[in-house]
Amino acid sequence: MDILVSEVGPRDGLQSVKRAMPTAVKHKWIRALAAAGLKEIEVASFVPPRLLPQMADAAEVVREAIKIPGITVLALAPNLRGFQDAAAAGAPKVTLTVSASEAHSMSNIRMTCAEALESVAKIVRFANELLAGNRPLIEVGISTAFGCTIQGDVDEDWAIEMAVKCAQAGADSVGLSDSVGYGNPAQVKRMFSRLNRELGSKAGGAHLHNTRGQGLANVVAALDAGVTTFDSSQGGIGGCPYAPGATGNIVTEDLVFMLESMGLDTGIDMAKLLEARKCLGEGLPGEPMYGHVPDAGLPKNFRRAKELAA
Amino acid sequence: MDILVSEVGPRDGLQSVKRAMPTAVKHKWIRALAAAGLKEIEVASFVPPRLLPQMADAAEVVREAIKIPGITVLALAPNLRGFQDAAAAGAPKVTLTVSASEAHSMSNIRMTCAEALESVAKIVRFANELLAGNRPLIEVGISTAFGCTIQGDVDEDWAIEMAVKCAQAGADSVGLSDSVGYGNPAQVKRMFSRLNRELGSKAGGAHLHNTRGQGLANVVAALDAGVTTFDSSQGGIGGCPYAPGATGNIVTEDLVFMLESMGLDTGIDMAKLLEARKCLGEGLPGEPMYGHVPDAGLPKNFRRAKELAA
Repeated sequence: MDILVSEVGPRDGLQSVKRAMPTAVKHKWIRALAAAGLKEIEVASFVPPRLLPQMADAAEVVREAIKIPGITVLALAPNLRGFQDAAAAGAPKVTLTVSASEAHSMSNIRMTCAEALESVAKIVRFANELLAGNRPLIEVGISTAFGCTIQGDVDEDWAIEMAVKCAQAGADSVGLSDSVGYGNPAQVKRMFSRLNRELGSKAGGAHLHNTRGQGLANVVAALDAGVTTFDSSQGGIGGCPYAPGATGNIVTEDLVFMLESMGLDTGIDMAKLLEARKCLGEGLPGEPMYGHVPDAGLPKNFRRAKELAA
Repeated sequence: MDILVSEVGPRDGLQSVKRAMPTAVKHKWIRALAAAGLKEIEVASFVPPRLLPQMADAAEVVREAIKIPGITVLALAPNLRGFQDAAAAGAPKVTLTVSASEAHSMSNIRMTCAEALESVAKIVRFANELLAGNRPLIEVGISTAFGCTIQGDVDEDWAIEMAVKCAQAGADSVGLSDSVGYGNPAQVKRMFSRLNRELGSKAGGAHLHNTRGQGLANVVAALDAGVTTFDSSQGGIGGCPYAPGATGNIVTEDLVFMLESMGLDTGIDMAKLLEARKCLGEGLPGEPMYGHVPDAGLPKNFRRAKELAA
């Protein structure tokens, strides 16, 4: 496998949809994604149910997902309490996020960037001390790393410095996130090149959105910088990647199609991936789904990376 | 200026819409595009009006457009007769196309690839002999260069060989075209690197479509190969770049936004470019228009390449 596609639909996608997907369909969808060859799936967010009722079944979803062989189950935790709950449910890997924008950090979690960094360090210490050898892997995402809808520019040096601090605090990997679709390919290449240089084996993946149509263009730039892990969401669920106010993740189907066409093996079967979309329709009837490849169909000459190499 | 964005909306876009845009609005739109900073605009196709009534005013549109200072006016000609008409109308640059797919060439113009190449050579000879020093520049686009909806794969060696033959026949520049959205970034980079190597100063631009969401990703790959001219269509007019059967060109607004954000000067003013969209709405009321940037808006920290460099 050349590239790890980390599916975030069941977490990032579903938490952006007002309605909750029934727990049984979540199980089914996650199994279908695993059957298609996805190797890492972010399945839930451990936030208080009063804030995100769509994630009220987080522990149950994790407990079911970790039974599926061959996948890494990821859960998002906004704070120590969430981390404890995720670990208790058996999540083998937990994502924490800190924002590189002071304005966004204050507005979102009422902490300065420095306080948010301290919170990450505290969670890592807790995990190391109390859970010792049995702790989940900890991944940190530096959000608004490419710009912020509130403050505009985000200092690139500062975003990288935050990533370094998280790695030094003991996070296992640190990625960069553009959930507002502000990044451009030149910046994405520059930032991930720096991340790789500064963090070495702890350099994490790219979480890119397609808000301004630059999602896959930014993937090409990140590939050029040596990035090998990309987040994406099946059907672009939870945010229209093409429309006003959109916060849409890049669409897994389009990402996998591009990578495989380029000869980069993702381990994912396109036909089964398209099949897994049906669970979305079943669990959230009428919810808009996106994707150019699902709409236009595969080209007549499509072959997977494995077949191209053969 | 680092990159030439060649606007094809008034030709490629409008010929794909069933209704005809009133001639006066075409004039207005072309002037608005020029005012926004577009330096090359493909304004018409010289085909028989019974085949494309939307282009019945081709000569009039060219005659008006060439009065605008500072732009290169392009016209498409499918054959010698079309070339003669385009030249008579005063077009300073004419685009010819040949398909690299035998199946597509036969189906589209009932000629083999070899016959289509001979037709190009004949047009160049005519232009050189009869029009002598005053002939239009001749650009050839190798269509289906990245794959074909009829025959599937298109041999890359053959597509490049056709480009070489066109250059040898006397075309001034030869570009590669993916109007079916089959290309992927690895292939685009490989093919344009070869084109640049084989054709040198006669290597032309990239005509890419976004049918499978790979449009701007392919632009990034082409930039990497040294391409400096890109075709695009305002509002993605004439074909939905996001939907079934789509043949949508990449959207000028999204392309310019990406290039300028990357620090690549296009000479184009985003605000005036968005303003030019209004002519489309006026000339083709209710016709769908596309574009992520027009939908989502510019990021708070957007600065043009010139401003980034300052």
